[in-house]
Amino acid sequence: MNIGVLGTGVVGQTIGSKLVQLGHNVMMGSRDEANPRAVIWTKQEGRNASFGSYADAAAFGEIIFNCTLGSASLSALQMAGAENMKGKILIDTSNPLDYANEIWTLTVCNTDSLGEQIQRAFPDTRVVKSLNTMNCDVMVDPNKLLERTSVFVSGNSADAKATVTKILHDWFEWRSIIDLGDITTSRGVEMYVVLWRNLRHATSSHRFNIKVVRS
Amino acid sequence: MNIGVLGTGVVGQTIGSKLVQLGHNVMMGSRDEANPRAVIWTKQEGRNASFGSYADAAAFGEIIFNCTLGSASLSALQMAGAENMKGKILIDTSNPLDYANEIWTLTVCNTDSLGEQIQRAFPDTRVVKSLNTMNCDVMVDPNKLLERTSVFVSGNSADAKATVTKILHDWFEWRSIIDLGDITTSRGVEMYVVLWRNLRHATSSHRFNIKVVRS
Repeated sequence: MNIGVLGTGVVGQTIGSKLVQLGHNVMMGSRDEANPRAVIWTKQEGRNASFGSYADAAAFGEIIFNCTLGSASLSALQMAGAENMKGKILIDTSNPLDYANEIWTLTVCNTDSLGEQIQRAFPDTRVVKSLNTMNCDVMVDPNKLLERTSVFVSGNSADAKATVTKILHDWFEWRSIIDLGDITTSRGVEMYVVLWRNLRHATSSHRFNIKVVRS
Repeated sequence: MNIGVLGTGVVGQTIGSKLVQLGHNVMMGSRDEANPRAVIWTKQEGRNASFGSYADAAAFGEIIFNCTLGSASLSALQMAGAENMKGKILIDTSNPLDYANEIWTLTVCNTDSLGEQIQRAFPDTRVVKSLNTMNCDVMVDPNKLLERTSVFVSGNSADAKATVTKILHDWFEWRSIIDLGDITTSRGVEMYVVLWRNLRHATSSHRFNIKVVRS
């Protein structure tokens, strides 16, 4: 499959590399058409990897991953272009974090979320919030952890969530995939990231995740 | 031990009953000295249970549980009285929830929390935020769930957190008790409650909890 990955940071690189390993064609999109990190990544990953602008990557992808920083996501997606994302699934892994202070805060929460803002800005794109609740090495390889843990999907399109659930299951080997509901449930998973940050400190590691356990 | 439980709702009753079963003397405090629910509860629980005003219960308890609704917690604690709580541990189980809308929102979050507000209002009390991340029947009996799950403590006093950790372990049989840090980490566990609400909907049950799994 042709997949667009927006963002050249560690999340975009980790997801992009995993997708290439799985045999997909991945274009990494960035603000600058020839972002140095994207150029190096493309060289490392070989012939199934390429780079371009946000718009190039969005047009290229049958499915698009938003791996940009939350603070930059809306402007990055505007550059990607509504037309290039029309009718497509956008897997939104971003978090609206303000890292400026030692205690992380969110730039939007409680009565709105970044997931909702993106869905409102791009009504013809099927936004599925997912994978924003763990570090990127866990995102693409949950078997790194001692037990099977949980990942969440939020979105307005049942079809899109079913496709993303299949991707999470078949490509990344997630086994506990929980559909939280419509895109407003992005609030909960984005607000969870503050607890994630506390847990990262408490466990002295970013390699952890939560498992939902029932009775 | 003599324990004060502030609040006559299902959380206060569940924790109060568990403490009586464990052999402790419990006074349930409420806004009205003879709250009907507290009167009935006291009759049910027998001679180790009693009721009184918030101030009576706070004065009675060597340790105090705040089981009031988050929206009423600060006023309830003002009625309990700083003098009656001076030097004591207050285990704060409350959440700053506004239930008015179908989508729950918090009355304080992100840059502050109810736990912090309570600690600021009562600087001579050692506030430990805990047990606010699961339903009350799981709080006092985590073995109800299929696996051992996690509970968190947040507070400025290491001694108070050590005491609360022992209570959680010895009385309620928690085995994964994670110290998140100072009282500012109340923000994370309070903000998590929005995800908890989504999970309650997704799992069609309030009997669940999260387990932190490492690598």
